[in-house]
Amino acid sequence: MKTIISSLGINRRTLLSALAVLPAMSGPLLTASAQAQTAAPGDALASWNDGPAKQAIIDFVKATTEQGSPNFVAPEERIATFDQDGTLWVEHPVYSFVMYALEGVPALVKAKPALAKVAPFSTVLEILKGDRAAIAKLTMPDLEKVLAATYTDRSVDQFNAEVTKWLAEARDARWKKPYTELTYLPMQEVLKYLRANGFKTYIVTGGGQDFVRTYSEKVYGIPPEQVMGTAGVVKYSYAKDGKPFLFKEPKLLLNDDFTGKPEGIHLMIGRRPIMAAGNSTGDRQMLEYARAGAGANLSMLVLHDDAKREYAYGPAQGLPATKVGTFTQALYDEAKKNGWTVISMKNDWKRIFAFDESAS
Amino acid sequence: MKTIISSLGINRRTLLSALAVLPAMSGPLLTASAQAQTAAPGDALASWNDGPAKQAIIDFVKATTEQGSPNFVAPEERIATFDQDGTLWVEHPVYSFVMYALEGVPALVKAKPALAKVAPFSTVLEILKGDRAAIAKLTMPDLEKVLAATYTDRSVDQFNAEVTKWLAEARDARWKKPYTELTYLPMQEVLKYLRANGFKTYIVTGGGQDFVRTYSEKVYGIPPEQVMGTAGVVKYSYAKDGKPFLFKEPKLLLNDDFTGKPEGIHLMIGRRPIMAAGNSTGDRQMLEYARAGAGANLSMLVLHDDAKREYAYGPAQGLPATKVGTFTQALYDEAKKNGWTVISMKNDWKRIFAFDESAS
Repeated sequence: MKTIISSLGINRRTLLSALAVLPAMSGPLLTASAQAQTAAPGDALASWNDGPAKQAIIDFVKATTEQGSPNFVAPEERIATFDQDGTLWVEHPVYSFVMYALEGVPALVKAKPALAKVAPFSTVLEILKGDRAAIAKLTMPDLEKVLAATYTDRSVDQFNAEVTKWLAEARDARWKKPYTELTYLPMQEVLKYLRANGFKTYIVTGGGQDFVRTYSEKVYGIPPEQVMGTAGVVKYSYAKDGKPFLFKEPKLLLNDDFTGKPEGIHLMIGRRPIMAAGNSTGDRQMLEYARAGAGANLSMLVLHDDAKREYAYGPAQGLPATKVGTFTQALYDEAKKNGWTVISMKNDWKRIFAFDESAS
Repeated sequence: MKTIISSLGINRRTLLSALAVLPAMSGPLLTASAQAQTAAPGDALASWNDGPAKQAIIDFVKATTEQGSPNFVAPEERIATFDQDGTLWVEHPVYSFVMYALEGVPALVKAKPALAKVAPFSTVLEILKGDRAAIAKLTMPDLEKVLAATYTDRSVDQFNAEVTKWLAEARDARWKKPYTELTYLPMQEVLKYLRANGFKTYIVTGGGQDFVRTYSEKVYGIPPEQVMGTAGVVKYSYAKDGKPFLFKEPKLLLNDDFTGKPEGIHLMIGRRPIMAAGNSTGDRQMLEYARAGAGANLSMLVLHDDAKREYAYGPAQGLPATKVGTFTQALYDEAKKNGWTVISMKNDWKRIFAFDESAS
């Protein structure tokens, strides 16, 4: 039996080793097509620079939604799936769903003071005090324990209340903003543009399903039933007053990463998406699955190549995978070979955040 | 590891012992409220007789959707979940999803002729030839084997094609109609009435999720992503040409019955339904869960008490549970105690099927 955290897919990525962000390699990774002419969808994609990525999105939406188009897709088949971390919002240097777990430790210690002297909780307390050396002490099994202690062994209602409280109070280290403000404005525009054209937009995340559902509607306009993620077992239980409630057990049900993404899409949606977006090897199978559909389809990869406005990381940047992420050279090569659209944050995005007034 | 059929919940119900339908006990089970005055929702519920059940539905919809109502529910929270077998369509004397498995055996035998002499496939062939005595030979483990052989070990695409073909050709024994015509017109009206009032309607079935999804949109207006059911593991795989596909493995993932219904609702929807309908003990927890919500809510139980136009079965009819179903006296008592609305097919439904011109 795996614990909830194996489920979160984080044993396959490096989470904590990248608190010091590496500098970006320079130079555009996309050869801009000089011929590309961007048809204007009003201001729907106002934060995008003209270029092949913006053009691919517009062309795809027109091809699938305009009456009489040979690639017309019936509205009910217009399913679009988005990875979250690194695709819709910042994932660097630590996933927000992991920060939630780390910053939840003081409350655990307050409830059970003895934990303050017990690893890994003692280690997390050191990290939170600013002891960066302590990060190296935190092993993956340690992190699993911390995630299990903060995500499970409580009711769904209690968990939701705790996450909601944390999101209201927590601030990221770089921008000093709530995490929910660190969403990418150009991707928010894509979500809205798709919905305005009859698409149903979904989040398909390796992060915790219950975690993301607490804010998905408010932050992305995506209702909880259109969020799938890594999920644990819940148990139908009864309170002392006889009222039923759902209890989060420390057992993995779905690992929504890698092959788990298309498998989870089948379970939760039952249709193949015609559009998918991701940013890492954990999204590879979902992008491949969408691209293998019989009709028009679009798969997109967000490339983090903007160290100035966000971050630059991954082997496609010439940076080691073990240090900074999982956008590998192989993934980049596959994207080019199979006609996935690579989105360069540096070149394709005029603005990155709603609060960011600078334009590239 | 359970096989797919344990998952289907059928080891908890009697499936095959009721091919000879028992006669119904007479007498109304609901005390009609003489004071009940049915507000007319146009012709939305035209197949319902005036009475407490119809009134409860109308009152609930008005209370939750009329602006200014103290029990107003925001549109995105208007989730309604329906059991399928026995609630939306006929389940007697054999669940359609089980008939599908039984009638799939000749094709299995055609592909592998040796199976004709191997139990349980040989037994099923006898049953299909009309040998009712053979039914007694079919044990639950036998049935599990037949279900596994017809529901799994093939691609999702192949399974969908096989089900679609069967549904087009198969006819039920009593009405000589396609199974998809055996849906209850009054419940179809409720689905439409709810959707017209901003509700999102879901099927939550103990039957196979992939099975129901092949026809849910056409038959009920419910898209596949709003169907949850008992589900097996699917495996992301590659064909010889390198194309990815999903393969149905003979392993249980979700048993969508009893506590599995509210647990599955949390997994797939992430919100508590404010309305739920069922007809058996397998729906008990779902009905209880909906009823335990903080705001206005409605739980409904369909009582099969119309031997003439459909069937009459279950201990609430004074008939033994082992023979005819799982609407137990305890369930009936719980419905009355906890304010669930009991729908009497005999008294509340003017017409049962769209093809049925008689009125009660």
